[in-house]
Amino acid sequence: MNKTIKENVIYEGRICRFTHNEVEFEDGSTGYRDVLHLAGAVAILAFDDDDNTFLVDQYRHAVSDQLLELPAGMLENNEDPVEAALRELEEETGYKAHEIEPLCSFYTSPGVVHEKIYIYIARNLEHTAQHLDADEFLKVKRIHISELERMILNNEITDGKTILAYSLYKLKKSQ
Amino acid sequence: MNKTIKENVIYEGRICRFTHNEVEFEDGSTGYRDVLHLAGAVAILAFDDDDNTFLVDQYRHAVSDQLLELPAGMLENNEDPVEAALRELEEETGYKAHEIEPLCSFYTSPGVVHEKIYIYIARNLEHTAQHLDADEFLKVKRIHISELERMILNNEITDGKTILAYSLYKLKKSQ
Repeated sequence: MNKTIKENVIYEGRICRFTHNEVEFEDGSTGYRDVLHLAGAVAILAFDDDDNTFLVDQYRHAVSDQLLELPAGMLENNEDPVEAALRELEEETGYKAHEIEPLCSFYTSPGVVHEKIYIYIARNLEHTAQHLDADEFLKVKRIHISELERMILNNEITDGKTILAYSLYKLKKSQ
Repeated sequence: MNKTIKENVIYEGRICRFTHNEVEFEDGSTGYRDVLHLAGAVAILAFDDDDNTFLVDQYRHAVSDQLLELPAGMLENNEDPVEAALRELEEETGYKAHEIEPLCSFYTSPGVVHEKIYIYIARNLEHTAQHLDADEFLKVKRIHISELERMILNNEITDGKTILAYSLYKLKKSQ
């Protein structure tokens, strides 16, 4: 376990905080650890009654690439992850889920990034309406899970949480 | 696709760079996107002849937690990912792999982080010697893959790349 000697806040933004920290390591030596702090996030693997799922197609500035991803979003003000998952699914896809269960939670990049994503499986969907944020530009795609599986096996999906969620869902189902 | 109007470099460190960017979105409106830039990284799911794999047990300052993860590390100076995977596996675990093949590559957190991880499957291992960096404190654990699977199914593993790699490996194997 490390001890933080001094945390230097380099940047505080709307959705993230970046710190440069002087740290004492377990052997007593000292050094630095940079940390990007993000709010926890949720992502939802939702199935309709015909085994289709919903992906969002959006341009991601951080990686300069157009990606297909599970619907996802950050927790707002200490929101419960289940509530956030239901909210984000409906906001991004226009579907309200009447059944939801947790799949797993994980750190996205624990060497430098403080971010945990909670994945949910949602079913029993009711069509309502999409509500996007002002700076959110995305298209919803309805895709059969066999097509999602094909795209994952061919590495056409490059978003980590999407690959993880579907592969782990299948691993659990095979037990 | 977005257009970067102005990139403001907030921080330049040894392993990362943080920028605050003024961006023009696809509808012509403008706003901001923060980006943490990390070098690409590799992670290795290595199997010995008895179906054991190797995990590293280390404290991760960014998430204030002790994690079990696949051996992994960043690409050094435009290094080829295969070379980096062989190097990191041997440095962290003390095993040189004589067979290696790509499993997939993915973005860890594409909303804010520019980081792609390349996962490899390694086999035909020869014991050599571990070489850790000065500020790397980790213990290597040899674990049978059935135990890794149990830990993943119980969400005892919380590192995303480790869950993703094993689950996707099993999905591919089941085809």
